[in-house]
Amino acid sequence: MRVVIALGGNAILKRGEVMSAENQRQNVRRAALAIAEVIAAGHQVVVTHGNGPQVGLMALQDMAYDQALASPVDVLGAETEGMIGYLIEQELGNVISAPNKIATLLTQVEVDASDPAFRKPSKPIGPLYGSKEATALAEKHGWVMVPDGSHFRRAVPSPQPKRILEIGVIRLLIEHDVTVICTGGGGIPVVKRKDGSYAGVEAVIDKDHASGLLAREIDADALLMLTDVDGVYLGWGTAQQRRLESVKPGELMSYAFAAGSMGPKARAAADFVSGGGKMAGIGRLEDALGILNRSAGTHIVA
Amino acid sequence: MRVVIALGGNAILKRGEVMSAENQRQNVRRAALAIAEVIAAGHQVVVTHGNGPQVGLMALQDMAYDQALASPVDVLGAETEGMIGYLIEQELGNVISAPNKIATLLTQVEVDASDPAFRKPSKPIGPLYGSKEATALAEKHGWVMVPDGSHFRRAVPSPQPKRILEIGVIRLLIEHDVTVICTGGGGIPVVKRKDGSYAGVEAVIDKDHASGLLAREIDADALLMLTDVDGVYLGWGTAQQRRLESVKPGELMSYAFAAGSMGPKARAAADFVSGGGKMAGIGRLEDALGILNRSAGTHIVA
Repeated sequence: MRVVIALGGNAILKRGEVMSAENQRQNVRRAALAIAEVIAAGHQVVVTHGNGPQVGLMALQDMAYDQALASPVDVLGAETEGMIGYLIEQELGNVISAPNKIATLLTQVEVDASDPAFRKPSKPIGPLYGSKEATALAEKHGWVMVPDGSHFRRAVPSPQPKRILEIGVIRLLIEHDVTVICTGGGGIPVVKRKDGSYAGVEAVIDKDHASGLLAREIDADALLMLTDVDGVYLGWGTAQQRRLESVKPGELMSYAFAAGSMGPKARAAADFVSGGGKMAGIGRLEDALGILNRSAGTHIVA
Repeated sequence: MRVVIALGGNAILKRGEVMSAENQRQNVRRAALAIAEVIAAGHQVVVTHGNGPQVGLMALQDMAYDQALASPVDVLGAETEGMIGYLIEQELGNVISAPNKIATLLTQVEVDASDPAFRKPSKPIGPLYGSKEATALAEKHGWVMVPDGSHFRRAVPSPQPKRILEIGVIRLLIEHDVTVICTGGGGIPVVKRKDGSYAGVEAVIDKDHASGLLAREIDADALLMLTDVDGVYLGWGTAQQRRLESVKPGELMSYAFAAGSMGPKARAAADFVSGGGKMAGIGRLEDALGILNRSAGTHIVA
């Protein structure tokens, strides 16, 4: 099968961990082992990943040194594609049998300049703040802050992905059995100008939605979204909590999920399967192959 | 012809300019026009670039925010491949006729763990410092500082490039007429462990040497190294200064050049042509096509 594997933020940095390169490398090593199992089972794999914590940290690092040299969010997104892509490519190359058949590709994703998301920043990036600190930062930098559990995070616009500019190259590589790492952080968001040229915009595209677009564009059989819970739950946190094992897109979308975590995954899964994809799977990183074989996780099927 | 175009630091940031993303984008736009002329003339192009100023700035930004979250130099190198690669891909895509046939590829380059360069840091990165500030920084961070004109810069090891890990993918893309941007900042330096796996090392490979290795590995006809002077000069800065127009590798290597600027270019050019390459060219960014047509710059030929 042709499979898009989307690594959630938790696959790169666990909640509460210090965001050092070494910690991220340790987590990516676990992810690489899970991906390697899928490749060893004979599947064609394309890997995508989130970048919320990393892009937020880079913004803070830029500002701490010299505000005049701070890069816009699209440029920071490109930096995270390099950084996270490198960790994934290196660790994956160290555990698969054909390490010379991996490519990490810079990916730009077109969004609509009139997307309403630009007027309502919703994508959390960077670290968690207490409410007092969040208020101070919002005033100082003009940031929009959104709640994340009992804390707050900076939010940037998260427009819908429309088109992957490098899709032709991605297809070419897949056809030649190259394991492609791409669409990192949901892709670098760009808009088309009136003259047909492209320009970056300050936003972070949701990586599950971008991964769904990618999966459709390369005719993938399956879209796996890997995180730190073993599937989609109803009544999460209550005594009646129950994991969905197999569910149709329509039923899945009839449930309400938190906007920040399971919401985008459920939506991306439903869209992919409704659009003709064979299956979408949501579950734990370590269960990647099991989810694909329908022995673990939650499966969304037509 | 198959041509490797190596963009010098000045093609991305001119001396004395503030290192903002916008300034770098303006310079990259000029570089993109020069590269587009070469592509429009029917040549196959692979683009490489330096990253000295950028990797140094990122190290400073990391440290300014929180030393515990500072990334090692190999990870910063990966970030610069994302950042500079994005600017080049976007600006080049905006001025060529087949913008869907560009790919920016993350590139790891193997170096020898026993390379003597690890004991003698020589590659300048980051901004220029006065002598007092340089001494203070050396003491505070344990940095090695090297002179650069009348100023000083931090220096990191610069081992010789041995092998480009993604060379198979680069060849595949070139064979399918994709304009490839790769080996940014000389490639991310990695060493092979005893068990055959790879690990990053804190170093910055010279981009001219890495570009020469790339040019040999893809059987390029020409290697162009573009900078802000119109060729290689003898007696530079004297009343007798004279630009070399056409020179053989042996003659070129008989002259002494400054280690930091023209030295690596001359060496990379001589190595490429001695190893069977048709020509190497050194000259101004704007003259890229002219250098290839031997009407501008300095040509190194067998």
